[in-house]
Order: sequence, then C-alpha cells, then structure tokens
Amino acid sequence: MQFVIIGADAAGMSAASRARRSMADMEITVLEKTGDVSYSACGMPYNIGDQNRKIEELVVRQAQVFRDKQGINLLTGHCVDHIDIASKTVSGTDTTGAAVSVAYDKLLIATGASPIIPDLPGFDLPAVMPLKILDHGRRIKAFIKKHSVRKAVIIGMGYIALEMCEALRELGMEVNMVKPRPILLPWMPVEMSDIVRKELTNRGAALFAGHTVQKIEPYKSHLKVVCKDLDLEADLVIVAIGVTPNSQIAGDAGLTLGTAKSITVDRTLQTSNPHIFAAGDCADAFHIVSNQKTWIPLALRANRAGWAVADNVCGKPSRLDGIAGTAVFKVFDLQVARTGLTASEASKCDFTPVEILVTTRSRAHAHPGNTPIKVHMVGDRSSGRLLGVQMLGCEGVAHRINGPAVALHAKMTVEQFSQTDLAYAPPFGPTWDPMLTAANQLLKKM
Amino acid sequence: MQFVIIGADAAGMSAASRARRSMADMEITVLEKTGDVSYSACGMPYNIGDQNRKIEELVVRQAQVFRDKQGINLLTGHCVDHIDIASKTVSGTDTTGAAVSVAYDKLLIATGASPIIPDLPGFDLPAVMPLKILDHGRRIKAFIKKHSVRKAVIIGMGYIALEMCEALRELGMEVNMVKPRPILLPWMPVEMSDIVRKELTNRGAALFAGHTVQKIEPYKSHLKVVCKDLDLEADLVIVAIGVTPNSQIAGDAGLTLGTAKSITVDRTLQTSNPHIFAAGDCADAFHIVSNQKTWIPLALRANRAGWAVADNVCGKPSRLDGIAGTAVFKVFDLQVARTGLTASEASKCDFTPVEILVTTRSRAHAHPGNTPIKVHMVGDRSSGRLLGVQMLGCEGVAHRINGPAVALHAKMTVEQFSQTDLAYAPPFGPTWDPMLTAANQLLKKM
Repeated sequence: MQFVIIGADAAGMSAASRARRSMADMEITVLEKTGDVSYSACGMPYNIGDQNRKIEELVVRQAQVFRDKQGINLLTGHCVDHIDIASKTVSGTDTTGAAVSVAYDKLLIATGASPIIPDLPGFDLPAVMPLKILDHGRRIKAFIKKHSVRKAVIIGMGYIALEMCEALRELGMEVNMVKPRPILLPWMPVEMSDIVRKELTNRGAALFAGHTVQKIEPYKSHLKVVCKDLDLEADLVIVAIGVTPNSQIAGDAGLTLGTAKSITVDRTLQTSNPHIFAAGDCADAFHIVSNQKTWIPLALRANRAGWAVADNVCGKPSRLDGIAGTAVFKVFDLQVARTGLTASEASKCDFTPVEILVTTRSRAHAHPGNTPIKVHMVGDRSSGRLLGVQMLGCEGVAHRINGPAVALHAKMTVEQFSQTDLAYAPPFGPTWDPMLTAANQLLKKM
Repeated sequence: MQFVIIGADAAGMSAASRARRSMADMEITVLEKTGDVSYSACGMPYNIGDQNRKIEELVVRQAQVFRDKQGINLLTGHCVDHIDIASKTVSGTDTTGAAVSVAYDKLLIATGASPIIPDLPGFDLPAVMPLKILDHGRRIKAFIKKHSVRKAVIIGMGYIALEMCEALRELGMEVNMVKPRPILLPWMPVEMSDIVRKELTNRGAALFAGHTVQKIEPYKSHLKVVCKDLDLEADLVIVAIGVTPNSQIAGDAGLTLGTAKSITVDRTLQTSNPHIFAAGDCADAFHIVSNQKTWIPLALRANRAGWAVADNVCGKPSRLDGIAGTAVFKVFDLQVARTGLTASEASKCDFTPVEILVTTRSRAHAHPGNTPIKVHMVGDRSSGRLLGVQMLGCEGVAHRINGPAVALHAKMTVEQFSQTDLAYAPPFGPTWDPMLTAANQLLKKM
C-alpha cells in the first residue's frame, strides 16, 4: 500500500510515524513544501522572545530521523499543487522546479493553514512578517538580530498577537497593537478582557482597537502603519490577524469544503472522497457541545487527527468525538483559558444560554499570595447542560480549565458538574474550587 | 422548626448558614464544644510555618457574625454527650459544667474527627501535640513562640505530617519523621513516593520509616522518642498518625456506624434515624468509582454535605453523588495529587485493574523551565473504565488532577477520557497533556 501525505508538520508526521509503527512494510511518502518538518509552531513566540535560543530548538524530530530510523520517504521542498482523484495521483514541483508525481492508495491532506495577509499596499515589505510556519519565526529572529528594532507594530490581537506582544516587550521593544474591531478578545466578557487590556498596558504595550490599517509605507529609515486617523511608526510589523485553511488543492480536486473553507471530514477524518483523508489546520471538526461542524485550528487536534488517520489507513477503525475548543494562553503574568461555547455561540446553536461571572480566589482564605480568578460559565436553561467556561487569573487557570473540558465531553449538566470532587489544598485554591463556585452560582440562575 | 447542629466547623456552619438563607424563621441552634467556629483547619500547617501570622487569620467567619447577622443560636463551649432519640433531645454540659438540654425536630451531627493518640507512655506530655482543631494549632504556635524549639519529631507520614514537616523546616527546625510501616505513601507507586522521599531529605528532613514508637520520655531538658532500635531527641513532638470519626454519641444513640466507625448516611446524608443527619469528618460517603461506602474525611465534602443537609431539612430534596477521594498536597517544591482508586483498592472492589506509570513534562518540548511530571493511571480491563490517577511534579499537578476527577464522576472509559480536548500552550504543558499521554499508554495495555 502506498500512503501519501501532503504536509510534514503535526498532523502529517503524527500520521506517518503512527502508520509506520502499525505497518512496517507500508510505503509512506510525505511531501512537504518547506524545508522544515515536525516542529512546535506554538513555541515560536517564546523562542523569538529569547534571542539566546535558536529557532531550531523547536524541531521535535529531525527529517533525517524519519528517513533513516522510520524508513519514511520524506521529501522536503516538494510542493503539491494538484490532486488527480481519477488516477489517484498527486503532482507538483520540487525545489529545482522539476515536476513530481506520486501515486497513492490512501492520501492524507495535512497542508495546515496560512496567515491572512491583507491585499493592501506595503504588506509585502521585508520588515512586515506573519508568524505561522517555522520559516516565519526564523525570518523574524534573523531580522531582529540584524537590525536595531526599537519599535514594533502588531496587527491583530488574537492569541498569537498577544504572545508576540509579550515576546517583543521581553526584547525591550516599544510595542503598539492595532486592529479594526473596538473590543479586545470579543468572545470574552468585557469585565474579563479589561483585565487582559490592563495587563498589556501595565507591561508597556499600547493598544489601538478600532483602527483599520489602510497601508504600510516606508517612512524615514523604517515604516509607518497607516490607519484613517492613526499613524504608527515601526521597525518591524507582525501581521497576526488570523489564519485560513490551505484547502485550495482539495477544493480544486472537487473535495467538499465547509466552515471557513476548511476541508470537510467525517469522524474518521475521511473527506468526501473515500481514499482521501484530511487532518490538522486544513480540516474541520465536530464540536462536542453543539455537535455541529466547526473550524478551530489547534495543535492537539492536529496530532490526534493524524493518529486517527493512520489507524484508519492501517485498518484499525478510529473515530474522533470532536473538539471542545479548549485553549489557554499566557499574557505576561496572566493565564487566560476557555473551553466550549460562549453565550453568543450557544445562542446560534439553538441553546438557551444562561451565564454567570464570578470572582473567586486562587488560594484558600487567608493563604498568602492569593490572587483573583474570574470565571465566566455558560449553561443551557432547557437541558441544564454545561456549555462553556472562560477563566483568567495569575495562577491556577491553565490546567483548571481541563475539569470543565472533560465535563463537556461527558455532556454533564451544570448540576452534575457542581457535584464533582475537585482537589483542594490551601496553596492551590479555596475549599470550593472556583469551578464549583461558578457552577453553584450558575445553578441559582437556571 | 427547631434545627439543632452539633459541631460548628465546616459541615455544621455550612448547614446553619444555608438553612438560615432558606428559612428566615427557623430556629437554628449550634452546639460547639470548643471556643472556635468556622475555620480553615487545612490552613494550619502553613500558618504555623509563619510565626508572623496569627492563628485567628484562619477563622473564616466570627461566631458573633453568625449570631448577630444570621440569628443563629451559636453556643460555643457546649459539649453534647448524649442524644435521646425517643424524646428528640440532645444533652450535655457548658463550660461551667452546668447541664444543657436542647430539643430538636431535625438534628445534624457534625462532630468531625479526632487525632489518634496512641495509648503509650509519654503521649500526654505537654510538648507532644496533635494537629486537628484550631486549638491544637494555637497550642503549637504558642509553644514554638515560648520555647527554643530546635528539634522536632513528627510521628506519622501522611498529608498533615508532610505539610507540618515543611512548616517546621521553614522555621529552621531539625525535623525527624518516624512511622511503623516501611513505605512512605504506600498508596503510591514506589517510583513516585521515592521522589517525595528525596524532596523531603533534600530539604533537610530525616525519614525513619519502619520504626514503631514505643514511648516518649523526658530526656535532659527536652524529650526522647523511643523506638525499638532508634531514639530521637525532640523539643517538640507532632502526632500525625491519622484521625478517627467522632461518632461515639451517634453509636451510643443506636445509630448505625460503618467504615472506620464513621456514621452511616445515605445519599441525602440521613443516618439510620429519619430525624438525624450526619455530615463532615464524622460521616461516611459513597465512592463514585466503586459505589461502595468509604470514609475519606476532606474539607470540600464537609462543606457540600452541610449544604445538602440544610436543603433536605428545609424541604428541598438534595442528594450527593459521592466522592472521588480527590486530594492534593504540597511538599516543599513538589505537588502531589490523586483521585479515584489505586490498583490495590480497585482489586478489592472487584475491578480488574490495569495500571501504567508514565513520565512526561510540565511544559512543551524545548520550553525553558520544563520539569518532569509522573502520572500513574489505573483502568478496569473488563469495563474499560478509568478508575484512578495519581500524579506528582513541581508544577502543573494540583489542578490537572481535576480533569480525571470529573471523568470519574462521568464514569468515562479510559478511551473516552483519552479523546478529551485538554488545554495546551507551551508554558503549561506538552501538546499531549500528561493526562492524555498516560491514557494513551494505558489503552495499549488494556
């Protein structure tokens, strides 16, 4: 059997390795358009924030290891631009421009996602850079090393933008952040996003929400980011306004695309063609709360989906329940986490959301070092189900979100969740864990 | 209606306050034998470890507040020694020795637990002290303040003993710990408890496991703890070998006692008498994994059970699912947590346990500050169910245990748990959370 994989990062290499472990004699070919494989993309902001670290530290496993130890035919610098469903062949070019064509019995599309770059003047200037693949990180690090970068502008205020803000402030840069919508983290209650805003400004970042960038232009010896009523000077501009799935070759081949043009897959990760799977940031997923299709490109899902594809290709049927959209990020001293649906998302899925926002503490009554934890919890009035949780604080947030995440998978009601036996010790929380206090308060409103 | 409560700590005062909020006109009488009410007993080791803190900081709400603001007839210094089921009356004495008698319509026994003090010579010496109620903490603090305490011996190596070890080391004392059984934390795999042992010894504590104390005797100007083949000198001896439920008045009144002589209650917290409830450390509970009775005295259960009793007394039917035995403690820089059953406990409950021990990391690949996390996970071969998890590490353990704790309440299989969407960001864990790595490895063995 010839198993062909397009894309050699999380989903692609997870699938390749697992398929090899299952079937020693399978022919496995991976075509990767860049020169990098199997790296931790999420680690890039932290790596960039420390000029003593090399970007290559983020590589989890070298290409040569996949080739020599696992016998995977890993072809870097190979760009696939066409899938021929009839002949079961993928084709494209290698770095020399030579045509490449590989036949498959089973195909995995793991092409990931690309940063969205607005089609506006100046976004192609050398000092204007996105951050998605390892080569972006390499470029940013090299640029910072070579040039005296004192002023940075970050376009966007999502996870990556916020993590890059911290990284660039760590390097001593002046950081200005700008985006068109007036609200920071619009999926979060304003009382909570205001705390994120304060953390950012206290740490020296300036936020300009509600300003649409019109162009970037050379100005004196550096750049100027131009909005209607705001000009921001910059030595470096990071474009972090979101990503879009790399689904064009799938769409061109006639495969069904769905939410945000991601590749539609079923619970076995199969696309609309029975010989083709898709996994990672290019593919969609079922949301375990709404049971509807969603597109939330995150690393765990990519790895897990890669494994599931390998199992299915190797004749071990594997189905994925779906995702809860659990995510956590760090902004300086703050931890921000979420799982499940916001009230607004829940309304769109035909739930009747009831929500509560509580402020509790990170440690027991009178325990030194106590800091506030804010929890926003959403339940469904009709069914009683827990629908989602958002949380922030200086400690005890990142892993605490896993309790409600598991509850969402189990389709627990808020009442059932309120009865769970969560850990307590004075250095780690109040007797009633913040999750339980929120659930108890939410129950009263339901 | 006359609602009478014996005991004014977590369970008793949770019940009193909640009953008052439900029914403004209810007569609520609380009889407490000590002078202290509503305090954080679990906070005592940390408070003792800091001589600048007053023990009274641990009081969550003053007795006067319950009396004045809530109209609760809170009688401290009142010791109940008899329950007359026929006449529905409790009786005893106040601090002056005068007889006290109170009639009830509904009674809550929330008498807590007492430290076990061996009936051996010298355990009644003034410098030999247990730690369970606030007055114990007060005595220990006062003793340390008054005397030059350089050497302490802790008898026992459970949670409290380990927390006291840290506290006394913080105060600069030489600490020797001693217990009869040769194994530290016998519920934990030796590979994990060895890490706890190393942490303790690295931080200057000496452990003598496998030595049975025979007596304590005056020696020079202080004390000597005498074992068969070991003498340990001490200025202060902490007795922390466990607690026993204060169930004697319940037993004397003919109420059914069960596991470890705790008071048997059903899911509504009712004892074998329909007018009498029991809650907190004196009462038993259903274990949500085994569905069998268990006695694990912990603070969250006490608070939750107090609430449930109040609701049931006030005509709002309330049932508690049970406990998972979730617990966490800190030993210097280590966090140690558990939930559910150990393999040995599972065997006794007719499960067929399969177990795995994995070593993962607290942060993502190559992220600075990464430390090991060890996870022991137990599943049932017949049903596939997740049965329990134990975990330790320097960070990311305390709240991470809540994910599997929720999974136990939901009676998830290991496979279902392995599919959960847990949070990931490089500062907080690997892409595959340690819980998921353990579940994936355990699945292979099942």
